[in-house]
Amino acid sequence: MGEEVNVTGFHNGSDDELDIYPLSGYFFGSKDPIPFKDHHFSRIKSNYAARGLRTCVQAVLLVELFKHPHLLLLQVRNSIYKLPGGRLRPGESDTDGLKRKLARKLSVNEDGGGSEWEVGECLGMWWRPDFETLPYPFLPPNVQQPKECTKLFLVKLPVSRKFIVPKNMKLLAVPLCQIHENHKTYGPIISGVPQLLSKFSFNMIES
Amino acid sequence: MGEEVNVTGFHNGSDDELDIYPLSGYFFGSKDPIPFKDHHFSRIKSNYAARGLRTCVQAVLLVELFKHPHLLLLQVRNSIYKLPGGRLRPGESDTDGLKRKLARKLSVNEDGGGSEWEVGECLGMWWRPDFETLPYPFLPPNVQQPKECTKLFLVKLPVSRKFIVPKNMKLLAVPLCQIHENHKTYGPIISGVPQLLSKFSFNMIES
Repeated sequence: MGEEVNVTGFHNGSDDELDIYPLSGYFFGSKDPIPFKDHHFSRIKSNYAARGLRTCVQAVLLVELFKHPHLLLLQVRNSIYKLPGGRLRPGESDTDGLKRKLARKLSVNEDGGGSEWEVGECLGMWWRPDFETLPYPFLPPNVQQPKECTKLFLVKLPVSRKFIVPKNMKLLAVPLCQIHENHKTYGPIISGVPQLLSKFSFNMIES
Repeated sequence: MGEEVNVTGFHNGSDDELDIYPLSGYFFGSKDPIPFKDHHFSRIKSNYAARGLRTCVQAVLLVELFKHPHLLLLQVRNSIYKLPGGRLRPGESDTDGLKRKLARKLSVNEDGGGSEWEVGECLGMWWRPDFETLPYPFLPPNVQQPKECTKLFLVKLPVSRKFIVPKNMKLLAVPLCQIHENHKTYGPIISGVPQLLSKFSFNMIES
């Protein structure tokens, strides 16, 4: 099923090839809303006081549209864009936590434990040195106790699947060229995703 | 020689660990100047007409200073910062070309073919779709014939070595926190290096 077409024609010897599939191969449905936890500093602060450094895991999911890679983003309240994911439970592994969060936000039911999600390599990490500032892609000098770490993982999609999204969120496919350096709309972490992906040669598989 | 100290104390389960060594373990000397080829669009244009898409390979070299990773940059004419590297010859591999360029710009002699340089993984690629615009970390939609591709490679340094730099250039160690998002000073490619490195946990080895 499908014929592999390297749309760009410029592999350029990269060891990292990534197959992505057309948006048209995916199916989208909705389910009951889930509570949306805003990123209020006060909440981060009380969480830190209770449990120490929190780790947030997020998924980079890609589809092909108009021969260009598109990133899947959740939109909440019309103006907040988020990578699918969330915070780990104490003691939970990155992979288990991300699968659990993907099941909660993108799957029809949460009972399977997210086993259908293929969590790949870590693409990057961002550190929040205190409760007020934006995150950095490194631990800033003299920061002894970072408050939050956000880890981005590549999650490979099959040629076809269902996405079932809570009714209070929208799932969008946004072209990399729109996200790149667009801090104002997407924030520092999402707007840097095209760079984190730049080592990959994309194989766009035509269905 | 050397005790491994994880200065950050926050490995956070990353698979990608990177040892970096103190700046004080390296020795710096100078050699005769080499011609500096400026990045004039006219030159790129004539090169493209003669040879088609050019690939430029550049090295990401890191040292430790004040317990923070520093990136080695070449400074030319006081205001131009460049990652060590250069353009491939026709048919030359990325690794061979980068070793040749590192020998030319950072080694005492160029006869060894750069065998002392350990070229690691590709961290990212940037594409220049035409002769006038800045590069992008992806091939923009509808670009059929990109004009230039710049590939960044991690080059791992040993605990000690000599750097011999042409007299018309300076070799600087610049902290990642100064480079991050500093487009104005360093340009889009260098200012994005901290993000490309963000997946690594740094082991700072104290000498």
